[in-house]
Amino acid sequence: MNKEVLRAVADARNKAPLVGSWTNFVTINLVANAQLATGGRAAMCFLPDEAYPLSTISQAIYINVGTMNSVSREALTLAAKSSHEFGKPWVLDPVAAGLGDTRNALIADLKQYKPSVVRGNASEIITLANMWGLQTETKGEVSGVDSTDSVESAHDSAKSIAKYTGGAVCVSGAVDYITGAKTSFQVGGGSALLKGITGAGCSLAGVIAVYAAVASPLIAALAGSLAFKYASEEAAKIAKGSFSFQTAFIDCLSLLDEAAAAGGFFRKPRDTI
Amino acid sequence: MNKEVLRAVADARNKAPLVGSWTNFVTINLVANAQLATGGRAAMCFLPDEAYPLSTISQAIYINVGTMNSVSREALTLAAKSSHEFGKPWVLDPVAAGLGDTRNALIADLKQYKPSVVRGNASEIITLANMWGLQTETKGEVSGVDSTDSVESAHDSAKSIAKYTGGAVCVSGAVDYITGAKTSFQVGGGSALLKGITGAGCSLAGVIAVYAAVASPLIAALAGSLAFKYASEEAAKIAKGSFSFQTAFIDCLSLLDEAAAAGGFFRKPRDTI
Amino acid sequence: MNKEVLRAVADARNKAPLVGSWTNFVTINLVANAQLATGGRAAMCFLPDEAYPLSTISQAIYINVGTMNSVSREALTLAAKSSHEFGKPWVLDPVAAGLGDTRNALIADLKQYKPSVVRGNASEIITLANMWGLQTETKGEVSGVDSTDSVESAHDSAKSIAKYTGGAVCVSGAVDYITGAKTSFQVGGGSALLKGITGAGCSLAGVIAVYAAVASPLIAALAGSLAFKYASEEAAKIAKGSFSFQTAFIDCLSLLDEAAAAGGFFRKPRDTI
Repeated sequence: MNKEVLRAVADARNKAPLVGSWTNFVTINLVANAQLATGGRAAMCFLPDEAYPLSTISQAIYINVGTMNSVSREALTLAAKSSHEFGKPWVLDPVAAGLGDTRNALIADLKQYKPSVVRGNASEIITLANMWGLQTETKGEVSGVDSTDSVESAHDSAKSIAKYTGGAVCVSGAVDYITGAKTSFQVGGGSALLKGITGAGCSLAGVIAVYAAVASPLIAALAGSLAFKYASEEAAKIAKGSFSFQTAFIDCLSLLDEAAAAGGFFRKPRDTI
Repeated sequence: MNKEVLRAVADARNKAPLVGSWTNFVTINLVANAQLATGGRAAMCFLPDEAYPLSTISQAIYINVGTMNSVSREALTLAAKSSHEFGKPWVLDPVAAGLGDTRNALIADLKQYKPSVVRGNASEIITLANMWGLQTETKGEVSGVDSTDSVESAHDSAKSIAKYTGGAVCVSGAVDYITGAKTSFQVGGGSALLKGITGAGCSLAGVIAVYAAVASPLIAALAGSLAFKYASEEAAKIAKGSFSFQTAFIDCLSLLDEAAAAGGFFRKPRDTI
Repeated sequence: MNKEVLRAVADARNKAPLVGSWTNFVTINLVANAQLATGGRAAMCFLPDEAYPLSTISQAIYINVGTMNSVSREALTLAAKSSHEFGKPWVLDPVAAGLGDTRNALIADLKQYKPSVVRGNASEIITLANMWGLQTETKGEVSGVDSTDSVESAHDSAKSIAKYTGGAVCVSGAVDYITGAKTSFQVGGGSALLKGITGAGCSLAGVIAVYAAVASPLIAALAGSLAFKYASEEAAKIAKGSFSFQTAFIDCLSLLDEAAAAGGFFRKPRDTI
């Protein structure tokens, strides 16, 4: 498993896959820079008529429902539909699931196109499993973009989503939980300073899309999680506050290669791989 | 007064209020990061159907009319209306007031919902008082996002707005002018380097919204102004150019706690509190 | 020629021209900060009803088609039309030309308003010349926002555009190619780290718009290209990764004055002026 993660990190840098993104206005710049830092190429769109062209030229697609606009429902549905039809991996980030009728209608629409990877915080993953009717017990609570539930409380929801999609789910938090239909992992470590900047989750999902272009959904989710835990720890060593942390964090991502990953990811037993 | 400002700074960090924002595409990331840096949680929306849900879960709302889109008039009006109905404090940033029919129609709509705090540059405050029919003498000139009027020339306009809303108004500039219906303050100091980055005014208003979630409008405006003057002075000491200043500025905001505020804000008589 | 470039650099800082921009959501913040760093003032809009007002108060207009929304075609066409009518210089950045029906229809609409400067990568310039019917041989390939063609292969396309508009064209890449209807230049040097962040091309075009407010199209394109090559070289000396490079790059732009330009731009024969 370690070997496959390292190969994904190296392949992203060597193959420079183009990842088309449909993402929110708040963190769009950070997402693009994180994707470039890990070796991918980034292109962002918003209009329905760009969905099929973007899926055609991209090796993976990232769909983040963070800030909806008046054409988002149509555009993002077409983006997922075309990815599904073309067999391109796509990553869903169900930001603030449960908030607003348009977002909820869109999230319902997306179910049929089975995302290769879903990345969310605990509350979002629980809400998504509820909205998609994948768990019998209703739990969780809508609370904007921040989680009010523990990662552990979302394990079952994550598994139910992975079983439905046949792909992988990453619940990010203090200890990330990554699961496929059968296997699951926990990735600890990382720096709490990631919570002090906006876009840590969005850019993690964007980077997972880069890795999904060159690896399986489960390996892609693992590689993204490990890269973020590692880079955030390194960045915390030199940060003076929240914004110099952000700078150092993207710097560390941009310096991540197979050798650094081998030395850094697995230097100590931070995970349960 | 000092004590109340310090309490606002501490409360924001301890209570981590959720602030829902309707803001422009240019500086939306900086606004969110400034809000996080001072202890708040940030959520940004754009669609009309999200207005009531966002006001429901937020402790304060920030409305910035900097970049209008095709649903902004409806969405931002509902955001203000719902805040007003729910008794939630809300902060208005009338960016580029006077420019474009849609923006002007929106600003007229918002009058009835009496913002708790208005934050603008001198030209924007003068234009707003004119548009809302709160002063007899018409003055000021539309000039995009930058002020062509002195802060002093906007004192009367600011007072007329505060008298109408019953809240506070902050005219930011070389010397910030903060006024309630009766009392007013001036806050000097700060670094001119703030003018070299985009979003200083927007993020100030966004941070005032964080403080407005835990303090009165007047104290919130004062706390925001003092925090920005202080953090910009500290950042200027280590900045090498405009962007390392921005990094250091958010860093300094993120390090601001009650103790630092007590030591920093009131170390020297920079203001007239 | 050197003298005119230096004058443009100095005039931008002394006259602080207001540049109105219609640009994409990904890099809008970097564009504004780059424009401020070189001495300009920035204002960004999206709605059709703001086109004439913004062209009225601005000294130059920048139009970037990177992320289209549902009113972009109307708004950007009016922005170009009003600039043309008012005789204000305007800069076109045909990002991802060829991708999506709306973008392509808009680009076709813009032809009649003859941009003062076009700035794009090689693939975009080739595609634009094809779309505007300015070259007999069809070549080039749509590939999102990154170029798959060499700068050299776009020389003829660039010249054909410059002959049609009567303005200037800048093909940016490893060696920038800047051409008017008659004269052309190549500018080498610069750092490859610019490719590791998003928005290098967008912000170059935004800065060219600042210089176009105070100089001829050809001199503006040259000044922008030289400033970016120089600042990126300086920034590369102190960068630790992709994001500290971005910080240092904007820092260096913000420190650029006539003296630095004289010492930096022409210290060594990096170009063919």
